[in-house]
Amino acid sequence: MSEVVLFDYWRSSASYRVRIALNLAGITYRPVIVDLVNGAHRAPDHLERNPQGLVPVLDIDGVRLTQSLAIIDYLDETRDLGLLPTDPAKRAAARALAHSIAVDIHPVCNLSVAKHATALSNGAGDMPGDWMRHFIRPGLLAFESLLGGFDQSPFCTGDTPGLADICLIPQLYNAHRWEVDLTDMPRLLAVEAVCAEHSAFAAAHPDLHAPL
Amino acid sequence: MSEVVLFDYWRSSASYRVRIALNLAGITYRPVIVDLVNGAHRAPDHLERNPQGLVPVLDIDGVRLTQSLAIIDYLDETRDLGLLPTDPAKRAAARALAHSIAVDIHPVCNLSVAKHATALSNGAGDMPGDWMRHFIRPGLLAFESLLGGFDQSPFCTGDTPGLADICLIPQLYNAHRWEVDLTDMPRLLAVEAVCAEHSAFAAAHPDLHAPL
Repeated sequence: MSEVVLFDYWRSSASYRVRIALNLAGITYRPVIVDLVNGAHRAPDHLERNPQGLVPVLDIDGVRLTQSLAIIDYLDETRDLGLLPTDPAKRAAARALAHSIAVDIHPVCNLSVAKHATALSNGAGDMPGDWMRHFIRPGLLAFESLLGGFDQSPFCTGDTPGLADICLIPQLYNAHRWEVDLTDMPRLLAVEAVCAEHSAFAAAHPDLHAPL
Repeated sequence: MSEVVLFDYWRSSASYRVRIALNLAGITYRPVIVDLVNGAHRAPDHLERNPQGLVPVLDIDGVRLTQSLAIIDYLDETRDLGLLPTDPAKRAAARALAHSIAVDIHPVCNLSVAKHATALSNGAGDMPGDWMRHFIRPGLLAFESLLGGFDQSPFCTGDTPGLADICLIPQLYNAHRWEVDLTDMPRLLAVEAVCAEHSAFAAAHPDLHAPL
């Protein structure tokens, strides 16, 4: 079996998701840090790995994969992780819940997007924090509301970790970082507490993956 | 069989994707227009359908689905549309290609995001057009580069329409609207030409779904 290599950045939500999924699969991997702050993602060696210049990139099973959601689906399909229900309608609902974060909050709050908005704002307000809060809080309130459609026991969509949990926890890390008020989101906070005690989530935490 | 209802908006890329997928599945549906420009997506009746206040929402098979990518996966799984390869690694690559648009370009250029950036920019430059072009052109250049990893014949990932085509065509509609230069993206333009001749794509075009 070929070595598994994760091109990773500690604070990237998308990398954090893949770290969680790799841990859930029990896959040992070698992390290679791509320092987004120093622009290493725009260097030729990383653009050759991924023309989008994004992390994560995962080398596994002799192939190179990009895009966190596609990588997680791959791990789910090849390692039978049970991250989504098998019933198509329930599966679609669980995917939609996850995408309400992974598609509608996270990309808009990507560092490069927030930086561009900050540059355009010409020093107005408290940027990029205002940008982050403008999108994260309403997005998570919608997530909290969507959670009402699931039997939450104790994870977002059931009694084992699923795709929605994998997307939620990194987004909450960001929400705390930008001081988003979450006090009126009890269901989401209950999931956070359960995941914090789960080894696959705990071992993926950014603090454990920051450069020394 | 229950009536299929699509809560739709003609210029929404996400709705446009679902219209294409419904056409590929040969499913007749009743469209209900949710006028994003008049704020109908923020009205209580639509928030009850989808707490995110987004289109599309699809009523089908007795369930209500949200999030275009989740809906398309549902249609693919229940109607056997063959939108993704069956091999897991190829499947992940095709998903990643689609997500390079659906996750990394489209949400950032969502009307509400571009409007917020425009408000912050306080009249600087040509907004929201500058915002759109700043993200769409580099994003599509990366897509063009990623296409090099696929046998394009004649669709993005093979000889039948797939998820990447369904995401690409609505994004190109937007690119044209915002006058993004695409002349150095020949592969992508070749896919566009083929899709324009395909009835499922042609019948989903926004011009055919605009309010009278």
